[in-house]
Amino acid sequence: MQTRDADIRAACAPVRVLTLRSDSAGTERADAVAVEAPLEVRIGGKPVTVLMRTPGHDEELVTGFLFGEGVIADADDIISIQRPAVASDRERGNVVEVQLMVSRRVFDGDRLFYSSSSCGICGKKSIASIEVRGTPTHSPLTVSSATLTALPDRLRAAQPAFARTGGVHASGLFTADGALIEVREDVGRHNALDKLVGWALDRGDVPLADRVLLVSGRVSYELVQKAIAAGIPIVAAVGAPSSFAVDLAEQFGITLIGFLRASGMNIYANPDRVTA
Amino acid sequence: MQTRDADIRAACAPVRVLTLRSDSAGTERADAVAVEAPLEVRIGGKPVTVLMRTPGHDEELVTGFLFGEGVIADADDIISIQRPAVASDRERGNVVEVQLMVSRRVFDGDRLFYSSSSCGICGKKSIASIEVRGTPTHSPLTVSSATLTALPDRLRAAQPAFARTGGVHASGLFTADGALIEVREDVGRHNALDKLVGWALDRGDVPLADRVLLVSGRVSYELVQKAIAAGIPIVAAVGAPSSFAVDLAEQFGITLIGFLRASGMNIYANPDRVTA
Repeated sequence: MQTRDADIRAACAPVRVLTLRSDSAGTERADAVAVEAPLEVRIGGKPVTVLMRTPGHDEELVTGFLFGEGVIADADDIISIQRPAVASDRERGNVVEVQLMVSRRVFDGDRLFYSSSSCGICGKKSIASIEVRGTPTHSPLTVSSATLTALPDRLRAAQPAFARTGGVHASGLFTADGALIEVREDVGRHNALDKLVGWALDRGDVPLADRVLLVSGRVSYELVQKAIAAGIPIVAAVGAPSSFAVDLAEQFGITLIGFLRASGMNIYANPDRVTA
Repeated sequence: MQTRDADIRAACAPVRVLTLRSDSAGTERADAVAVEAPLEVRIGGKPVTVLMRTPGHDEELVTGFLFGEGVIADADDIISIQRPAVASDRERGNVVEVQLMVSRRVFDGDRLFYSSSSCGICGKKSIASIEVRGTPTHSPLTVSSATLTALPDRLRAAQPAFARTGGVHASGLFTADGALIEVREDVGRHNALDKLVGWALDRGDVPLADRVLLVSGRVSYELVQKAIAAGIPIVAAVGAPSSFAVDLAEQFGITLIGFLRASGMNIYANPDRVTA
């Protein structure tokens, strides 16, 4: 696993900032903020969605997003993801053209998406249409509580864009022994997970039945849904889960951990996978 | 300003949780998580979007959302927001029917939304279609740095659902003297702001040219766009801003403050409104 300098440069934008401290005069200085920019996704030449994302790993993001939305079943369903010629400066670097071998989900051209990947429920306009893609996991994976409590520090150490900006989420994939396999950062927490799942899809590693996912923030319905789709049996978060996340985890056999810290954790569903 | 017990009960769901601490045995106990549930919005009997929200202040949420999307220009554009009879348990309490006097934005029935309010760019499928609604602010409002640094503690003290769950965002509206006027909480940070703006719209208080907005988390493109639409000249966040948020703030004359703490702050745009 390596992070290229070019990735970090693409993810962080320089700004001038006026810093005020109660015990001193204001100082103007150079700082960095996380880049948030639109990525237009075209399929067959037609714009289908705009994802507000941090640039970098765009192809993985699109792969993971299309997988999470049920449009592709694996990376082989994608023939190519390319950068088309664009008409404006605003679009430069921010448009991808996807060619699909097959679309697993029927959608009538310009109707499916209209979305941001910060949602997870985009494309749904009625409660009846909210459905979870995936099947319950029966993974026998177990992980010790001591291994789990060591993960947040390891994830933090692998977040260069967060270190510079304080403004990006991260998703990290770990072995049951606590080794960090890969991490992705993004201003959108769903994007960070889509990039990570896209990376795994490209390697043919999905379903990720022997992996532990750690997300840097809170864990909502959408993140658990994406974990279910990717076959991840243990989902841990530094922050709190929502009620819908807990319900889904119970329903699909996911072990759901919240408030994971060096000092301990709360387990909200299927605690049997966590050993003493 | 008052928070009703019923609001807090609707926003927090009881759960059983297994708490592990490195220095003691695991204990099972009762805890609470933030409720995340879908709200289906119908206009003229037709489902147009699903917002993943924390129940409570649903009418304000819908009002603020439709305003932010440019569908209504003020609360008077809405004839009524009602709870229709629903077909399933899943829909109970989670469907609203909106009757509009006028729709300021042309949309062809079932095409505009397909969204979650966690986005802010829903309904957009191309970069060219991303536009900011609103005009630059020339508000002469000023606020002292000492007043600003006192705000995070005041907001935190007015977040009962956060105190119980640790899992909800908040948006708070303050006077230039630092008095908290109103606060709203939600699992979606954009929802929290939509609820707050919806509340202000119902009172006829928009544009909010003499108010300071404080959000509990990071500040993205979408939040600044909603602040611009509501005419709020000073936007402060406990967390980091994104590059797009900084760009928009500069472009529309918004004073943008990040990392606001008792000890100080960073000012990213238009610092003239902050006095010593």
